[in-house]
Amino acid sequence: MTPKPLILVTNDDGMFAPGIKALLQVAKELGDVVVVAPDSPQSGQGHAITLEKPLRLNKVDVFEGVEAYECSGTPVDCVKLARNVLLKNRDVALCVSGINHGSNASINIIYSGTMSAAMEASLEGIPSIGFSYLDYAFDADFSGPKHYARKIMKYTLEHQLATTNLINVNIPILPLEEIKGIKVCRQAEGTWDEEFVEAKDPRGRTYYWMTGSFSVKNDDEDTDIWALDHGYVSVVPSMHDLTDHKAIAPLKTLETFEK
Amino acid sequence: MTPKPLILVTNDDGMFAPGIKALLQVAKELGDVVVVAPDSPQSGQGHAITLEKPLRLNKVDVFEGVEAYECSGTPVDCVKLARNVLLKNRDVALCVSGINHGSNASINIIYSGTMSAAMEASLEGIPSIGFSYLDYAFDADFSGPKHYARKIMKYTLEHQLATTNLINVNIPILPLEEIKGIKVCRQAEGTWDEEFVEAKDPRGRTYYWMTGSFSVKNDDEDTDIWALDHGYVSVVPSMHDLTDHKAIAPLKTLETFEK
Repeated sequence: MTPKPLILVTNDDGMFAPGIKALLQVAKELGDVVVVAPDSPQSGQGHAITLEKPLRLNKVDVFEGVEAYECSGTPVDCVKLARNVLLKNRDVALCVSGINHGSNASINIIYSGTMSAAMEASLEGIPSIGFSYLDYAFDADFSGPKHYARKIMKYTLEHQLATTNLINVNIPILPLEEIKGIKVCRQAEGTWDEEFVEAKDPRGRTYYWMTGSFSVKNDDEDTDIWALDHGYVSVVPSMHDLTDHKAIAPLKTLETFEK
Repeated sequence: MTPKPLILVTNDDGMFAPGIKALLQVAKELGDVVVVAPDSPQSGQGHAITLEKPLRLNKVDVFEGVEAYECSGTPVDCVKLARNVLLKNRDVALCVSGINHGSNASINIIYSGTMSAAMEASLEGIPSIGFSYLDYAFDADFSGPKHYARKIMKYTLEHQLATTNLINVNIPILPLEEIKGIKVCRQAEGTWDEEFVEAKDPRGRTYYWMTGSFSVKNDDEDTDIWALDHGYVSVVPSMHDLTDHKAIAPLKTLETFEK
């Protein structure tokens, strides 16, 4: 009997988020599963890693029949500990992160702990998928996300992911039967317009609390935001090379300076 | 008299790092300066933001004649507070972050608080530069980094940054007169090979502490690692689009799935 593929499951919302439970249900159908997730919510942690203090890793019994560990660090720490300690001598066929509660489309990939965990695994050579569901509600209906997570994970285990090994999958808030299918697209351009609520604490000292609204700068038909707005699951192949290659030639002027 | 350009200075090592002092000395020659920096070291914070708790922002008197604030959040929080609260109605001509103690070449841009702060400012439309010096020593000689920071900041204030508004500058450990000049290049491919020191705390519980060594996968002549190894200051134009555009077409198979 061929051994089942080993699937590493992580997230940034912690072990008690409905999203990771939904993802696990699918992962268990497709392979042997190990979960390493943060011991507290880590939204917005981006690609943070823990250098200045030690990390804890504790085995927990949360999901029936699944080997699971909670980690005191960030989502990226979880993946690093999984890869380098827990699963050091094992082949990991796939890493899935999520299902995040809230969108990671467009520029949100940069702030997202969910996507950073997947990106870290892909840096370690593991095909990796971040899943995010636009519905924030605790009792959200996960039938759409589970259906598409199953299809996309199956495809990835069977075919790999073309020239990349990282994809960012977002699922619109729609009943399963109303989702129109999958669009493979690029990251839309957008920014967060932040505001800070300014108030006084009980001791009279000022504090600031971040809030904001997302503003889309470009949502052409080939972008993830367009796909989601039109009822599709968006799939964006992503990468770690942040070089703006087209800016290299015009900036060569800098090389002509006197020393 | 034309008003001097407003320069926002930040970093991830905090207000007492020699690197930010060196950067300030240069920034003061070129414009009016406001400093917003973390109130504690924030290396490896990547693009983390603080959502779950309030932030503090306190005016401090650290640098003679310079308006400076310490912030309780991450480097990205510092930039968001600067842009949206402190400097809300002012034009910021340039944001400089650093000078970081340690390299942010190659894939390190992803983990770096220094570069994430610069990236955040560039997302807000501000031309931004992250500076990093390969020398970790507290008493490092900053004459090379200051010389090149001056040249590059002056160029950016006068000419902008071609099609990008974000560059990643790394400076080799060499006396100023031995630095060969500037190379505009791409991010080298590399990964961190992590190891975790596993030990017991005083109560007998296991902890893990991250360590690791950087391993270069590709350092061709057009990369930042090559430039630094050969005595040049590396300048990499960077961007926020993480889409792996060449992988979109081959992944279109995913769109052909039955719903």
